[in-house]
Amino acid sequence: MHRRDLFKQGLAAGAGALATYSFMRPQPAQAQSRSNTVKPGQFWPDGIRMPMSLSLMFETGAQPATGAPTPFGNFTPPPGIYDLPTITWYRYGYTEGVPRILDVLDKYKIKITSHMSGRTVEMYPDRAREIVQRGHEAAAHGWNWDNEFNMSYEQEKAFIQRNVDMILKVTGQRAVGYNAPGLRGSVNVLNVLNDLGFVYHIDDVSRDEPFIVKLLNGKTIVVVPYAVYMNDIRAYEARFFSSEQYLIELKNSFDRLYEESAYRRRMMAVTMHDRLQRPEHVQTFNEFLEYVIQKPGVTFMKKIDIANFANNDPNTIRENIADVYPNVPNFEKKTS
Amino acid sequence: MHRRDLFKQGLAAGAGALATYSFMRPQPAQAQSRSNTVKPGQFWPDGIRMPMSLSLMFETGAQPATGAPTPFGNFTPPPGIYDLPTITWYRYGYTEGVPRILDVLDKYKIKITSHMSGRTVEMYPDRAREIVQRGHEAAAHGWNWDNEFNMSYEQEKAFIQRNVDMILKVTGQRAVGYNAPGLRGSVNVLNVLNDLGFVYHIDDVSRDEPFIVKLLNGKTIVVVPYAVYMNDIRAYEARFFSSEQYLIELKNSFDRLYEESAYRRRMMAVTMHDRLQRPEHVQTFNEFLEYVIQKPGVTFMKKIDIANFANNDPNTIRENIADVYPNVPNFEKKTS
Amino acid sequence: MHRRDLFKQGLAAGAGALATYSFMRPQPAQAQSRSNTVKPGQFWPDGIRMPMSLSLMFETGAQPATGAPTPFGNFTPPPGIYDLPTITWYRYGYTEGVPRILDVLDKYKIKITSHMSGRTVEMYPDRAREIVQRGHEAAAHGWNWDNEFNMSYEQEKAFIQRNVDMILKVTGQRAVGYNAPGLRGSVNVLNVLNDLGFVYHIDDVSRDEPFIVKLLNGKTIVVVPYAVYMNDIRAYEARFFSSEQYLIELKNSFDRLYEESAYRRRMMAVTMHDRLQRPEHVQTFNEFLEYVIQKPGVTFMKKIDIANFANNDPNTIRENIADVYPNVPNFEKKTS
Amino acid sequence: MHRRDLFKQGLAAGAGALATYSFMRPQPAQAQSRSNTVKPGQFWPDGIRMPMSLSLMFETGAQPATGAPTPFGNFTPPPGIYDLPTITWYRYGYTEGVPRILDVLDKYKIKITSHMSGRTVEMYPDRAREIVQRGHEAAAHGWNWDNEFNMSYEQEKAFIQRNVDMILKVTGQRAVGYNAPGLRGSVNVLNVLNDLGFVYHIDDVSRDEPFIVKLLNGKTIVVVPYAVYMNDIRAYEARFFSSEQYLIELKNSFDRLYEESAYRRRMMAVTMHDRLQRPEHVQTFNEFLEYVIQKPGVTFMKKIDIANFANNDPNTIRENIADVYPNVPNFEKKTS
Repeated sequence: MHRRDLFKQGLAAGAGALATYSFMRPQPAQAQSRSNTVKPGQFWPDGIRMPMSLSLMFETGAQPATGAPTPFGNFTPPPGIYDLPTITWYRYGYTEGVPRILDVLDKYKIKITSHMSGRTVEMYPDRAREIVQRGHEAAAHGWNWDNEFNMSYEQEKAFIQRNVDMILKVTGQRAVGYNAPGLRGSVNVLNVLNDLGFVYHIDDVSRDEPFIVKLLNGKTIVVVPYAVYMNDIRAYEARFFSSEQYLIELKNSFDRLYEESAYRRRMMAVTMHDRLQRPEHVQTFNEFLEYVIQKPGVTFMKKIDIANFANNDPNTIRENIADVYPNVPNFEKKTS
Repeated sequence: MHRRDLFKQGLAAGAGALATYSFMRPQPAQAQSRSNTVKPGQFWPDGIRMPMSLSLMFETGAQPATGAPTPFGNFTPPPGIYDLPTITWYRYGYTEGVPRILDVLDKYKIKITSHMSGRTVEMYPDRAREIVQRGHEAAAHGWNWDNEFNMSYEQEKAFIQRNVDMILKVTGQRAVGYNAPGLRGSVNVLNVLNDLGFVYHIDDVSRDEPFIVKLLNGKTIVVVPYAVYMNDIRAYEARFFSSEQYLIELKNSFDRLYEESAYRRRMMAVTMHDRLQRPEHVQTFNEFLEYVIQKPGVTFMKKIDIANFANNDPNTIRENIADVYPNVPNFEKKTS
Repeated sequence: MHRRDLFKQGLAAGAGALATYSFMRPQPAQAQSRSNTVKPGQFWPDGIRMPMSLSLMFETGAQPATGAPTPFGNFTPPPGIYDLPTITWYRYGYTEGVPRILDVLDKYKIKITSHMSGRTVEMYPDRAREIVQRGHEAAAHGWNWDNEFNMSYEQEKAFIQRNVDMILKVTGQRAVGYNAPGLRGSVNVLNVLNDLGFVYHIDDVSRDEPFIVKLLNGKTIVVVPYAVYMNDIRAYEARFFSSEQYLIELKNSFDRLYEESAYRRRMMAVTMHDRLQRPEHVQTFNEFLEYVIQKPGVTFMKKIDIANFANNDPNTIRENIADVYPNVPNFEKKTS
Repeated sequence: MHRRDLFKQGLAAGAGALATYSFMRPQPAQAQSRSNTVKPGQFWPDGIRMPMSLSLMFETGAQPATGAPTPFGNFTPPPGIYDLPTITWYRYGYTEGVPRILDVLDKYKIKITSHMSGRTVEMYPDRAREIVQRGHEAAAHGWNWDNEFNMSYEQEKAFIQRNVDMILKVTGQRAVGYNAPGLRGSVNVLNVLNDLGFVYHIDDVSRDEPFIVKLLNGKTIVVVPYAVYMNDIRAYEARFFSSEQYLIELKNSFDRLYEESAYRRRMMAVTMHDRLQRPEHVQTFNEFLEYVIQKPGVTFMKKIDIANFANNDPNTIRENIADVYPNVPNFEKKTS
């Protein structure tokens, strides 16, 4: 089914679904006139209006031994010199960051997905186990921060397999969701993930809802989309947002998606990094959670649950890999 | 007529025009004493006090296949490597961004100008047609993001002609307004545009009102000015504004121009990019629209309508190209 | 007199001066016990509690013909290519920026100092004359944006002399205050300025009050200090402040200096650039002026008036050039 | 004792300690069930709920003679050229910055730790003495801003010894706390500090409480942690925060740590730099002090007092150097 057809259906379905929620707002005339073939309640299961999906990157120690990105701007040592304060900055994720955010998640009974670097799980098995034991999904994040984008097929497969094996050994959970380091797998990554039995990946920011990618070999993988703007590493480290600015940005993003969720399938993804679960950030993130948790129809879902639902729902958008990555010769366009 | 003379007239005219609007504020003594040769109502037609001019850049897929600007800071692959998540980031403009903002514009019955890259129209003809069918102006934006500034005359002409042809073929509309990639045409660009029958271009930020540029060959082209500070790609991507900060900036800019529009010809230009029509941005931009739409005398105009009005109005500022681009040998100064 | 001695006196004097103003706040115990040799009223003349000093950089067209700093981030052409939109960005200072801010200054009857590049005055003599005719001080800013810091003594002297001559020819005013391009004169700059009869320069941010520098040849020059943080080119262009953030910063700076002005000589300097007098910036700057203008004892002074007062006041801080620029061999330390 | 064991104890102790403070908030279920072996009152001495630790970097003139970081973005001269305005920018720390913040600290009777560069103390002995005479701790900060991270053992020892000697000679106080330039000592730094009799260092951001590092030779040194996000040089200079944004960030950080201090040992560190004690920053920092000083159980402590308490308390976290700096071959992991 084509995306635009689904879009029309979704809008009409939303008109019907509105009765379920306290939210009500006049829609544009054009939206009202679209045909109504998706039934109310089909956007998400169990009466959910819109799911939130949080992920926690657990990657302390996965950074390069020297030359890693650092928050200490001046006097930056050249690669080859051990940068002691920066090492302790990364380590904060293990010592303070993960325990702090896990306590907050427990307070609200929120279950999330944690993408774990293999090397991190090896270094800190107790913390990896704690994440899983407190009810969260263990997903994969590559062995460490090596550049995955220029690996050969076999190198990339080994890089991810080693990650999966370590998570399984330490936590007892088999990861079926993937996030490449810096989101950047090679052009083979979806085939590799398929070979390794992954159900979904998140390294695609092209939509605000899950969708299915059809590979050239006829198999499929689900995208549970990342939202690079709703990501503390970008907000705090790359864009210099204060915690307060990020809080407002999160609320604005939520408000819009929540409005749209009345007539379309929408989800909101927020990404957290272990070392940034600092006092000021968790203080404001806590406020965001308080804001959304009271909204009718909002539920927190693990990514695997979103992926499984999308995979089994006939209304989920399906796309050829050549359409998702246009202008990439490796995915030379097939007629669809 | 010289700009300064017009300025004097404008101020006096504004004093008369004040009675038409609820807005009233004491003007500086000097302003009050200026001569009154421009009649009230001559700044804009149809009782308009100040027009707003929005543009939507539709350019998904026009970026280079590798090495394009990316919001994913770390692990950036070198040119030559396909950067998969960044490709999906651009694609968001097509999948989510344009539909979202078109719905908002419909809600307020606002018509705008969309600058379309030729390659984008070729890749996504349905979306290009949708923009035009929903009532907006199709304008040109170059074939793709190739550097236009160092093309030869013939190369540049072909680069723009191909863009115009594709828009015409797909949407049925002939573009007569131009915006070069990154605003940067070559020193020949105004002559090329003139040759190709363009009425206006927007790659000039030197004024807050339209004006006419006299070329060396005696012909003219209208400038409908760009406002680089009121531009989401600059605000969000380059300056790290949050959506809330940008909203306040937009309101402050509007307030000042609206005040000045009581005694001078003023307009406000705001530029939007397809891939940045994200939930948090559209949420705050929607609030800006709510803010301005209720102000007496504010109307949204397509750029072609502004250009045509300016072209036919004797009070429009006229300038020699040598004055617009001082110190550029190609436009060696003629006596004016 | 040594700075620290004056500091002690200033604090005590402030205790006495408090009665003159509505402002009152407990001072630290140590401050109260300092000796009282500066009489109330000696900080500034004419009952002034604290002067504000605004400067307007008029420098349209003084930038390099190619390769100048640009607000248009992507597609930046290499030096040698004429960057048309950037040229129009600079030109905004002449067409819109200066007229806009002059109107605001007139509204509040504020007189300021305008640092004018020589080339700019040559290109736009009418605007330079207008600035002076509306009551403002014409000061020097170098001929253009050439690097002054590595000129020879004679080159630097000619570079500044040409600037002074052009201002005098066009406006009839002889500049006696200097601001080097980017604040950066060579190590000879103070001697050159002394040779050329300058009374003061502003390229020193080491104090929040004027002071006198003793040169090695026994002559002196006054510093009317710059405040790089209270400068729109830094706030908007380099630090990405929104207009609203800068407004709050200005108010916070004012509030602290105003408090301190009860017991010390304080001044507040704010720098504006022609091309940044955009609608949103002037809107918020106008609000700042409204905020300060109602405070008891606040007056706007031209820099030349501040310099003359400081030069003639025995309580003005005096420093050896070797102390102002420590660790610079050219000013080898003399015993003081 | 292992960190996680202490963590469990801390949470339980916090449950008991809650009665001492007005603050009360439901804890997560998991936290409530942890064993209770730390007694109420053991987190900090003297009924303190949470200490604040401020540090003031006194480093005017310690920067390189040419090529030092500068707030003046354009026209930056190459190394080898003396950059006069930048020299005056650093000098502000001595002339205005330190006196201003010392007055504020006196007003609130707050005692802090000042990390002093040796060269600065040599250049400005009166100011160094004033800091100590007004009751603050003199700590070390290296001789100047030379790169410490690639010095040999003997070079680094001499670099620090010279710093200690100068502080002792000028102020009469022997520094026992260390902060390397840019936080970056060599891999030998902890042994060097141990050799020189230092009690603590601050160049570790891995925790929000003090802890003890066990060196390979069996000796120990205390970490009184730095908080790079609560640091004006980072907030204002590197991240472009306005003073107001930083104020909100400080309050958010405080609020979270204060909440956590009900059941764990927590401290809040804030770092100030001499040259950034500008009017707008001190104005907002003053507001932060007003905010925290009224909270029950909050006390300002010098770092040496925190270090001594931590050193003598059996509940202080103890870690092997190999765990603090994982993946650094110099600290090859020993069994613990």
